Amino acid sequence: MAEREFAQRGFAGASLRRIGEQAGVSQAVIHYHFGSKEGLFQEIFLHRGRAIADERTTRLLRLRRERRKLTVEEIVRTFLQPAIDMKRDPDGAAFIRLQARMHTEPEEIGNVLRRQVFDVSTRLYVDALAEVLPQIPKPTLYFRMIFSVGAYLYAISDAHRLDEVSQGASDARDFDRLLDELVTYLGAGFSVPVRKSPPAARGHRSR
Amino acid sequence: MAEREFAQRGFAGASLRRIGEQAGVSQAVIHYHFGSKEGLFQEIFLHRGRAIADERTTRLLRLRRERRKLTVEEIVRTFLQPAIDMKRDPDGAAFIRLQARMHTEPEEIGNVLRRQVFDVSTRLYVDALAEVLPQIPKPTLYFRMIFSVGAYLYAISDAHRLDEVSQGASDARDFDRLLDELVTYLGAGFSVPVRKSPPAARGHRSR
Repeated sequence: MAEREFAQRGFAGASLRRIGEQAGVSQAVIHYHFGSKEGLFQEIFLHRGRAIADERTTRLLRLRRERRKLTVEEIVRTFLQPAIDMKRDPDGAAFIRLQARMHTEPEEIGNVLRRQVFDVSTRLYVDALAEVLPQIPKPTLYFRMIFSVGAYLYAISDAHRLDEVSQGASDARDFDRLLDELVTYLGAGFSVPVRKSPPAARGHRSR
Repeated sequence: MAEREFAQRGFAGASLRRIGEQAGVSQAVIHYHFGSKEGLFQEIFLHRGRAIADERTTRLLRLRRERRKLTVEEIVRTFLQPAIDMKRDPDGAAFIRLQARMHTEPEEIGNVLRRQVFDVSTRLYVDALAEVLPQIPKPTLYFRMIFSVGAYLYAISDAHRLDEVSQGASDARDFDRLLDELVTYLGAGFSVPVRKSPPAARGHRSR
């Protein structure tokens, strides 16, 4: 419930009074339990974020036990699935929006929490991808992981944008379709051989 | 200058008083010129956003005149270049952060402006991609355009995330490198043939 208030208004705009009203408790109760607005925000982020990160880790370990040799698409799908599943529940969906806006919140709030929650599982996935893509240098895989996180967060946190651009031809609320499209796109992006940009293209740079 | 205030604190958190102080003008002057905080926000978004959108359109038309047959990578590079260039100037960089958080701002502020500024040029690019990728259905190209916008906005609006995940092995502030990595990744994502997910992978879905 508080997820929705933070997701909609951001940290600065969120109001403990509104959160209390919607939850049917006084601000005093919220202060008693969480200390401050920042405390409540952290609690929510840690709770929901850890659920995604733990699920990612558990699923990857299970997949590794089941099969000797994984494909890039299997790894990518396993990474995406917990976030897509969370998106199906309204409070979960609000958390996804919250997560998408973390990188635009003041740094002191966002960076530490995000690192705490996601860094270990994300690096596990980069390591798993490095095993099946030994020809791709690790620094490039990190770039590609960041692109992939950006791609999925943007797509699932704002279905409107796809509606607008496609004028209704594509629907981001069809989560099975969205997941399939993401797996194919991310899989290709992770797997493509590294190449230098052609001299012709470089000539187009403005500086 | 006002870009930085909005980018840092979001619409709700931004203060006309602070913006006025930094610009050395009174709040009354700001109110006189822009009507309200929302008016100032719109003005900034329209000004900077249009600069990117216009540059994208101009460059695509120029490229089409120069060559008969374009590659996916050339189209993608032309799309990305104006945003990467804007990122090199501090107020421009603040606008990129602002743009990245648009999809998490209250809808009434964000959606209309964004549509007004970016829809035409973005559809022009999808059309150009559809020409060189006739085998990819248009609805899938729209999905891939949204993934691509998410990937580049996330990567250029928050260099910290790459530092954290890669533990310093990759540097998003090397803009030439970032652009090359983006072009390769997005190029592959746009071009990959459409395929259904394998039945085995579908079995892993939790619902």
